[in-house]
Amino acid sequence: MNTKHFIFIAISFFFVSFTTLTTDKPKTSPQTDDCISCHESITPGIVSDWRTSLHSINSFAMATLKPELEKRVSSTDVPKNLKEVVVGCYECHSLNAEKHKDNFEHFGYKINIVVSPNDCNTCHKTEVTEYQKSKKAHALDILRKNPVYSALVNTTLGVKEFADNKIIPKDASHFTQNETCYGCHGTEIKVTGKIKVSTDLGDIEVPKLSDWPNQGVGRINPDGSYGSCTACHPRHSFSIEIARQPQTCEQCHLEPDVPAYNIYEESKHGNIFETMREKWNWEEVPWKLGIDFKTPTCAACHNSLLVDGQGEIISKRSHDFGSRLWVRVFGLIYSHPQPKNGKTYEIKNQDELPLPTTFNNIKADKYLISKDEQNLRKSNMMKLCSSCHGTNWVTSYFEKMDNTLMETDKMVETATNLISYAWNKKLADKTNPFDESLEQMWVQQWLFYANSVRYASAMSGPDYAAFKNGWWYLTKNISDMHQLIKQLEKEK
Amino acid sequence: MNTKHFIFIAISFFFVSFTTLTTDKPKTSPQTDDCISCHESITPGIVSDWRTSLHSINSFAMATLKPELEKRVSSTDVPKNLKEVVVGCYECHSLNAEKHKDNFEHFGYKINIVVSPNDCNTCHKTEVTEYQKSKKAHALDILRKNPVYSALVNTTLGVKEFADNKIIPKDASHFTQNETCYGCHGTEIKVTGKIKVSTDLGDIEVPKLSDWPNQGVGRINPDGSYGSCTACHPRHSFSIEIARQPQTCEQCHLEPDVPAYNIYEESKHGNIFETMREKWNWEEVPWKLGIDFKTPTCAACHNSLLVDGQGEIISKRSHDFGSRLWVRVFGLIYSHPQPKNGKTYEIKNQDELPLPTTFNNIKADKYLISKDEQNLRKSNMMKLCSSCHGTNWVTSYFEKMDNTLMETDKMVETATNLISYAWNKKLADKTNPFDESLEQMWVQQWLFYANSVRYASAMSGPDYAAFKNGWWYLTKNISDMHQLIKQLEKEK
Amino acid sequence: MNTKHFIFIAISFFFVSFTTLTTDKPKTSPQTDDCISCHESITPGIVSDWRTSLHSINSFAMATLKPELEKRVSSTDVPKNLKEVVVGCYECHSLNAEKHKDNFEHFGYKINIVVSPNDCNTCHKTEVTEYQKSKKAHALDILRKNPVYSALVNTTLGVKEFADNKIIPKDASHFTQNETCYGCHGTEIKVTGKIKVSTDLGDIEVPKLSDWPNQGVGRINPDGSYGSCTACHPRHSFSIEIARQPQTCEQCHLEPDVPAYNIYEESKHGNIFETMREKWNWEEVPWKLGIDFKTPTCAACHNSLLVDGQGEIISKRSHDFGSRLWVRVFGLIYSHPQPKNGKTYEIKNQDELPLPTTFNNIKADKYLISKDEQNLRKSNMMKLCSSCHGTNWVTSYFEKMDNTLMETDKMVETATNLISYAWNKKLADKTNPFDESLEQMWVQQWLFYANSVRYASAMSGPDYAAFKNGWWYLTKNISDMHQLIKQLEKEK
Repeated sequence: MNTKHFIFIAISFFFVSFTTLTTDKPKTSPQTDDCISCHESITPGIVSDWRTSLHSINSFAMATLKPELEKRVSSTDVPKNLKEVVVGCYECHSLNAEKHKDNFEHFGYKINIVVSPNDCNTCHKTEVTEYQKSKKAHALDILRKNPVYSALVNTTLGVKEFADNKIIPKDASHFTQNETCYGCHGTEIKVTGKIKVSTDLGDIEVPKLSDWPNQGVGRINPDGSYGSCTACHPRHSFSIEIARQPQTCEQCHLEPDVPAYNIYEESKHGNIFETMREKWNWEEVPWKLGIDFKTPTCAACHNSLLVDGQGEIISKRSHDFGSRLWVRVFGLIYSHPQPKNGKTYEIKNQDELPLPTTFNNIKADKYLISKDEQNLRKSNMMKLCSSCHGTNWVTSYFEKMDNTLMETDKMVETATNLISYAWNKKLADKTNPFDESLEQMWVQQWLFYANSVRYASAMSGPDYAAFKNGWWYLTKNISDMHQLIKQLEKEK
Repeated sequence: MNTKHFIFIAISFFFVSFTTLTTDKPKTSPQTDDCISCHESITPGIVSDWRTSLHSINSFAMATLKPELEKRVSSTDVPKNLKEVVVGCYECHSLNAEKHKDNFEHFGYKINIVVSPNDCNTCHKTEVTEYQKSKKAHALDILRKNPVYSALVNTTLGVKEFADNKIIPKDASHFTQNETCYGCHGTEIKVTGKIKVSTDLGDIEVPKLSDWPNQGVGRINPDGSYGSCTACHPRHSFSIEIARQPQTCEQCHLEPDVPAYNIYEESKHGNIFETMREKWNWEEVPWKLGIDFKTPTCAACHNSLLVDGQGEIISKRSHDFGSRLWVRVFGLIYSHPQPKNGKTYEIKNQDELPLPTTFNNIKADKYLISKDEQNLRKSNMMKLCSSCHGTNWVTSYFEKMDNTLMETDKMVETATNLISYAWNKKLADKTNPFDESLEQMWVQQWLFYANSVRYASAMSGPDYAAFKNGWWYLTKNISDMHQLIKQLEKEK
Repeated sequence: MNTKHFIFIAISFFFVSFTTLTTDKPKTSPQTDDCISCHESITPGIVSDWRTSLHSINSFAMATLKPELEKRVSSTDVPKNLKEVVVGCYECHSLNAEKHKDNFEHFGYKINIVVSPNDCNTCHKTEVTEYQKSKKAHALDILRKNPVYSALVNTTLGVKEFADNKIIPKDASHFTQNETCYGCHGTEIKVTGKIKVSTDLGDIEVPKLSDWPNQGVGRINPDGSYGSCTACHPRHSFSIEIARQPQTCEQCHLEPDVPAYNIYEESKHGNIFETMREKWNWEEVPWKLGIDFKTPTCAACHNSLLVDGQGEIISKRSHDFGSRLWVRVFGLIYSHPQPKNGKTYEIKNQDELPLPTTFNNIKADKYLISKDEQNLRKSNMMKLCSSCHGTNWVTSYFEKMDNTLMETDKMVETATNLISYAWNKKLADKTNPFDESLEQMWVQQWLFYANSVRYASAMSGPDYAAFKNGWWYLTKNISDMHQLIKQLEKEK
C-alpha cells in the first residue's frame, strides 16, 4: 500500500462508512432463513460460499437501481416475492417448480435440486437468451446427435478386449462419457427414482438423479432447459472475478485438443496477467480496459462488457460465446467460418456428412456465416485489439493468422490424402475411421496439431506453434504416417 | 482493503498492539545467537527465512498454552533447555547428537548437518509417529528393496550404448537415481569422510555426505531415521501455508505417472483455488472449511485438521498420508485397496512377485486393507465432500469412480494380454520386461494412461480423462501395441 | 497486515505524505501532452499502461540522483530536452529519427513506430551494451545464418503435400516462421511501403512494416539495431516486477525443447515462489536476497543485481544473459562450454559444420570459453547458491550436474550412432537430416529429452528428469529407433 492509497482510504473511511451504516440492507426471506438454519451445519461450505456472494447482500430491487452499464441484472421485473429480499437458497431453488422433474417435498417446501438457466432467466434474461443461441448450450447434442462425433466418442471411450489376436471394442459407459467428453459438453440429467438420506431430523427421501453431478456447458436439466451457468460462475458465490479469470476456462479448454488456456498462459497477455493480476480490479462492472485490467483474459476478448477510461463502450457483453468470432479455428476437420446456429448437428456438407467441411475442404456454406458477417466480426475484434496496439500491428497480426489457417488446413489435407490412400489401398479399414493406429494418427493431425498451431497463432504462443504439439508434430506426423503406409504396403 | 476491514484493523490496532507490547517474548538461546552472528553473513538466506517462521518467535512453553485444536506441537514436554527459548538454529541442529553420524565439532559446538524426523519428534511427536507408518517414510526402500521396481529404475536410468547392432545397457548411476526417482523417494545419506571449507575464520572441516542434497520423502538420514519433513515444510520458514498449497505437492505428483497436481489444476476445485487463493487464510489452525478456504487443496482432503464455522471437527489431522484413502488409484499394475503397511516391499502376490496384484489382477489380499476398512475410510471421505456437496452428488461421484477403476483395470488387462501374447510367441523377451519398445508401451498403459484417467476421475479433470494421457491414449496404445505385434509376427 | 506494519504505516504516513506533497514532480513534455491528447482515446490501453510506469513519474535528472546501487539508469548524461521531463511517448518515439526507416511525419512530429535498443541506450547505456554481446541480441542471425539450423527450421515449418506416394515439402513462409521460431528469435523488420489509416482527424499515412509485430529477443529493428527490450520489459509499463517474474521467461523457455520454465515450476524454488510471491518485494533495487524475496526466480540467478541484508553485493546485474553460465546445457547436439561470442553462426567445428560440437562430441574449443573461464563463472554461481545452502549441498549439487551432462551426452551419442548406422546402411537418406521419421526421433533425443534431463538437473525437477520427457524417453527413444532400424533392414 503506497502513500496515495493510504490517503485515499483514510478520507474514504469517514464518508463511505457513514453511507454504509445508514443504507437499509435487504433481508433474507423467511424461507431462506429456514434453509440456512439446517444447512449451516449440514453443508457449511455451501452456506459460507453464498455469504460471500453479491446475491447474499443485494435484492433485485437494489440491483435495478444501478446505472445501465453497471447493471448485473437484465430482466426488467421479477415476481413480487423476489423483489425486496436478498437472493437466497429458496429464491433460486424453488423457481418454476412445475417444470422441475427434480422437485421434491422438503420439510414443507417444494425444492428443486438443480437450478437451471431457465431459473436464472428470472433476473438475467438477456444473458440466458444469448446463451441459448450459443454452441455451448447445445454442446451435448452437438456430440450425441452427430453420428461422426458419436463414433469418435464411442471408439475412444469403450473398453477393449484382446482375444484371438483381435481387439474387441465394447460400447462406452455412461460413467466414462460423463467424466470425459460429457464432463465439458454436459449430460442429460434425469430423475430415475428416489434415494433415502439419513439426517438429524430422521430419514428423508430425495429424487435420484442420473448422470449427475455434471456442470458441462450443454447440460440438459431436469426442467428440460439447456446449459449450466455454474460451469463458469461456479457454486454459490457466483463470482464475476472467477468468470473473468482464465483458470475458469482452463477446465475444458486445455491441450492437446483445445489448447486455448495453455497458449494464453504462454502468450505475453498471459505472462503479464499472471504477474500483475493481484493488482487489478476484477469486480468492476463495466470493466475498464487499461485501468481495471491491463491485458485481456479469455472473457475480455470473448464476452465481457469493456469500456475505456471515459466510459465509452469498446465491446458489448455477450453470453453467446462464439458471437464475436468470425472463424472457427477448431478444425472439423478444417478451420471454417463460424456456424450460423449453435445446433451444429444440423449441418450437412456436400458429402452428406454432419461436418462443416468435407474431407476435401469444401465448406458447408449454407450453415456457416457469410463473408460479410465474418468481416464485420473481424473488424469488431480488430477494434478491441486497437485499444492497445497500433494499426500496423493489428492488421499484420490478422493477415498472419489468415495464412496460418490456410497452411494448417493444407497440412490436414495432406494427412487426409494419406489416410484416403490407405483406405483405398485397403491398408486400413474405413468402416470405423477412428480405430486403427494410422487413423488415430490422422485424427491427431487435425484435432491436436493443427488446432495447436491455430490457437497459438490467434493468441501468440510461439512454443505451441513450433515444438509443443505444433509444426514439429504436424510435420513429423506426416513422416510417420507415410512410414507406416510404406510398411503396410510391404507387409501386404 | 474494504471499509469493513479498515474499521476492524483500526479497532484491533489499539487492543492488539497493547497486548503485544506487554507480552514477554521468548528469546533466542545464547547458542543460537552465536550461530546467527556468523551465519547472518555466511548464509543470509537461511537466517532471514528462519526469521519469518513461527519457530523464531515462539517457545515450546508458549506453544503448549494454546487450546487443543489450535496447537501445532503435539509432544507434552521437552527437555528444560528447549522450553523457554525460541526454536533457533542450535535447538534443532544439536538434537540427539549421539545418533547423528553427521555430527561434527563446529567452533565449540557439536552440530548435526541434517535435522531428521527423529529430531522434529522432540516437539511434534504425533506427526512423526504417524508419518513413520506411511508409505512416504518408506519410499526409498519401496523402490530399492523391490526387485521389480528396481529393475524398472535401473533399465530406465542406465546409460545405453550401441554396438554390433545391439543396445548395451549400463547400470544407473547414483547421481542420476538421486535426481530422478530418488529425488522424490529419497536417498540414503551416509558420511563418507571430511571436506575442508574455507571461512573468514580460517579453514574448517565438515563431514562429507553422500547422496546429498536430497529432500525425498523416504530419505534415510545419518541418524538412521526415515523421512524428510522439509519435503513439504521446506527450508527454515516451516510454513504451514506452503504445506497447504498444492504447489508443494507439485514437485513429485506430476504427469505423466502421477498427474495429481495437473488434474487438480484442471479441476473446478483447482480453478477456484487459483483465482481466489489470495483472499483465503492459509495460516489458521484449525482450518475452517468455507471460511478460511473455499475449495480443498491436496492437504485439505489428505491430511489437514478441518473444522466447520462452529469449530466442529470435520476431519482430523494425519501425517500418515494414505490413511484417509480406501483405494490406491496408482496402479501396480492394477488399482487395489491401500496396503496395510507402509513397507510395501514386504508384499508377495500369488505369483510370488512383490506386487499388490498379479498380472491377471488377483489382489494380494493379505497385505491390503479389508473391505470393511475400505468402507470406513470411504464414508469418512464422503463426509468431507458432504460439507459442500449434496448426497446425490457425493454418492454418484463415488459410484462413477468405482466404475472407472474397473474399466481402467480392464484396459490394463488388455495391454497385459497383448504383452503376454508377445512374450509367449517370442516376439519380445521377458527376461527384462522393461527394455523393449513393446514392453515400454505396456508400461505406459498402466503407469501413464490408466493412472491419468483414475486421478482425473478422483478429482474431476475431464481433459486428463479424455485426451491428455487419458482414454485417447489408453485406446490408441492398444491399437499401436497390436499394430507392432502384427508387424513382428510378419517379420518373423 | 500485522500490527507492526500498521504502526510503521501510520508513522510513515505523516512524514512521507508531507515529503511527497512538497517535492517538485517532473512534468510531461508539451510534445508528449500532444500525443496523449489523441491517444488517450485512440489507444487508451497504451496510455494507461504507461501511467503506471516509473517513466511516467520520473525524469532522468531525478533518476541519476539515486545512490549507485539503487540506480535504474546507467548513462551519465542525456540531451538537455530529455533531462527534466518525464519519459513520455515523444521522448522515446522521436529518438535518433535519422536512423529510423520507420520514421514518419505524424501531425507535425517526426515519429518512429518502433523504439529500439539503440534508443533505450540513451538512458540505459550499460544494459544495452551488455545485451549486444549476448546470444539473445543475435538470436535471429543465429538461426538464419547457420545453414544447419535453417534447414531444421525450413524442414519443420514448410507445408507438405502428398502425391505419387511421396511427401513433397515446400519452403516455410515468413508468416509461419515469424510466429514459431522467429517469434522468440526475432524478425528483421523492414519498411515496405505505406498504409492508410482512417482517424477522427481524417486519413493519415504510416509506414508499412514487414515481419511485424514481433518482440523476439534478436529482432533487427528498422534503425538497424539488434534486440528487443520489450521481450522482457513488455509494453509501456517497463515493469521490473514483470522482468523478474518467471512468467516473462515462460513465453520462450518452455518444453519440450527448452523446458526451463516448466522445470522451475516443478522445483522447490518454484513451488515456494508460487505460494509466497505475493508477499515479496518485486520493485526494490537492489534486490535483497532473503528479505525482498526468498527463492530465486530466473532473473535472480541469471542477471539481477542481488545484495544481502547489509547491502553487500552478492551478484552484479548483467544484461549479457549467458555471462554467468559456464556451460550450455542446451545441446547442439551435445552440451558444451558457453560460446565466447554471441554470434554463434561464426563457429566452425572440426567437421566444418557451424555447430559447437561434432557429431562425435568433439568441441569446437576455439569458439568456446576456456576451462579457467568456466571455473570462474561456476564458482561465482556457487557463491550465489551459498547464500542459502551449505558447502556440502552446493558442491555435491554441481558434481551431480557434471555427471548428468556427461551421461546425457552419451545418450545423445548412442542415438547419433544409431542414425549414422542407418545413414550408412541407406536405411535413411542424409541429404536432409531432418525429414524422415528416424531422423526426427534422433532430433528429439538431443533437442527434447537430453535437454529436459539437463535443465531438470540444473534446477532440480525430478519429474522432468525421470518420466516427463526425461530418462524414460531418452531410453524408450533408443529402443524405438533400434526397433525401426531392425524393421527397415528387414523390409529392405
